[in-house]
Amino acid sequence: MSGDGMSDVGINDVFTLPVRVYIEDTDAGGIVYYVNYLKFMERARSEWLRKQGVTQASLLDEQTQLVVYQLDCHYARPARLDDALEVTARVVSQSRCRMSFAQAVYREGTQLCSATIEIACLDARRLRPKAWPPLLADVFDDIAQ
Amino acid sequence: MSGDGMSDVGINDVFTLPVRVYIEDTDAGGIVYYVNYLKFMERARSEWLRKQGVTQASLLDEQTQLVVYQLDCHYARPARLDDALEVTARVVSQSRCRMSFAQAVYREGTQLCSATIEIACLDARRLRPKAWPPLLADVFDDIAQ
Amino acid sequence: MSGDGMSDVGINDVFTLPVRVYIEDTDAGGIVYYVNYLKFMERARSEWLRKQGVTQASLLDEQTQLVVYQLDCHYARPARLDDALEVTARVVSQSRCRMSFAQAVYREGTQLCSATIEIACLDARRLRPKAWPPLLADVFDDIAQ
Amino acid sequence: MSGDGMSDVGINDVFTLPVRVYIEDTDAGGIVYYVNYLKFMERARSEWLRKQGVTQASLLDEQTQLVVYQLDCHYARPARLDDALEVTARVVSQSRCRMSFAQAVYREGTQLCSATIEIACLDARRLRPKAWPPLLADVFDDIAQ
Repeated sequence: MSGDGMSDVGINDVFTLPVRVYIEDTDAGGIVYYVNYLKFMERARSEWLRKQGVTQASLLDEQTQLVVYQLDCHYARPARLDDALEVTARVVSQSRCRMSFAQAVYREGTQLCSATIEIACLDARRLRPKAWPPLLADVFDDIAQ
Repeated sequence: MSGDGMSDVGINDVFTLPVRVYIEDTDAGGIVYYVNYLKFMERARSEWLRKQGVTQASLLDEQTQLVVYQLDCHYARPARLDDALEVTARVVSQSRCRMSFAQAVYREGTQLCSATIEIACLDARRLRPKAWPPLLADVFDDIAQ
Repeated sequence: MSGDGMSDVGINDVFTLPVRVYIEDTDAGGIVYYVNYLKFMERARSEWLRKQGVTQASLLDEQTQLVVYQLDCHYARPARLDDALEVTARVVSQSRCRMSFAQAVYREGTQLCSATIEIACLDARRLRPKAWPPLLADVFDDIAQ
Repeated sequence: MSGDGMSDVGINDVFTLPVRVYIEDTDAGGIVYYVNYLKFMERARSEWLRKQGVTQASLLDEQTQLVVYQLDCHYARPARLDDALEVTARVVSQSRCRMSFAQAVYREGTQLCSATIEIACLDARRLRPKAWPPLLADVFDDIAQ
């Protein structure tokens, strides 16, 4: 268990990122603007990726772009200004050039929203599917064993 | 047909809002950040609502809050900086305190993404479902006939 | 005066863009999040640029990047959800690779905030100052006469 | 020195918040969208406030709203996707109902941008200046000694 507030997890385990709600995240309804939970979830996926030794910047450098091609999200309860949230990410399936995440946002153990996010690996120049880069492919091989 | 770039439509017709892509909407991948299409779609719903004679500000004044409780979105092609987009909204079903929109984003007739957005009408103080305010209820009555 | 809601103006005249306030622009204080006025102002600069026949996308294609290197902004009154705003932009000075805009946001003739925004023209690869591209240089020549 | 990555500082000392750059923060120029540094700076001010024992949510509950009424910002170098930034905040002056922060963003010791942010304390209902709430007034008394 690492000491930086992020779980040190296997590839199919639940990864958790703490996220604080700031004024930038809220709207005139006094709650977190619903679109912003998707940003929180992307932060968690980015940190999950970093744990695997991969950054999106390094992927872009090698013309590899991870794009969301499908998402569904269910909202149960609102978060508010100053809330301390926990945002989870877990890989639930992957193939040669796709990956599916189950994600959720919690406040003190209560689930506020949940989502399934489908990611494709694209060639950044042609925006066509391409196989995962070797580093991520190795990660997925580890899972399969 | 009105002259302000927005369709003058019946309640179940397709409403269309033109949206320009600005630098604020893009990301380091050189395309529109996928989360921002949901903002474009909300702008279209807000203008659809305004066409019915209702503003979200006036709803908040009477403690009525429209919240998204479920969405799914499929992304087919990316939009880019300076693109002139068309964002559509169409009510596909409604009940005493819920409403479902089918929405899409187009560029020159090509669909870039599509979504189903489920809205609930809440009491803003208690965040509990409440019936549509009279003005919107009347709109829905018109549809049913 | 053109019929599309944007002024048909000379280079040193005041250019005006209408902007509607949506829920995405507001915060838990019930007003427009102050940072978002800067987005409104950039939309006005982008449309001013388009009026001159230049798009930021076409500039990026030729490795030219316009960046803000200095801004100051004064906030007098808040805007609210559903407000119809007018955002102005006027070039107040320019040199070989810099340009200064005076901008403001109005609601029904009342000024809500004002800013001075300093722009530099950079080589996008090296992020070093470079001269305005011919199209904009011609625009500036027109002013000087 | 606390162990949570935030400095344990006196009121006039420099407070530092670590901020990671995510894809949501970038634009099509491949760099952090300049407006978003102001969000990073507000996060640092919010955490500084929390260190003093005050949250913006608790202020809003007592009808006290902190608003930015003036800012100037200078941008020297761009931040990029995945950068680990440090955002500083330091109170440089305060009066009965105003407070001025000097802030900056650093990457590995190099300053990327700096700003002066002027805050006013308002009655949230009337949006008129009011004196700092007792908790913050006590903080300022501590400084003066």
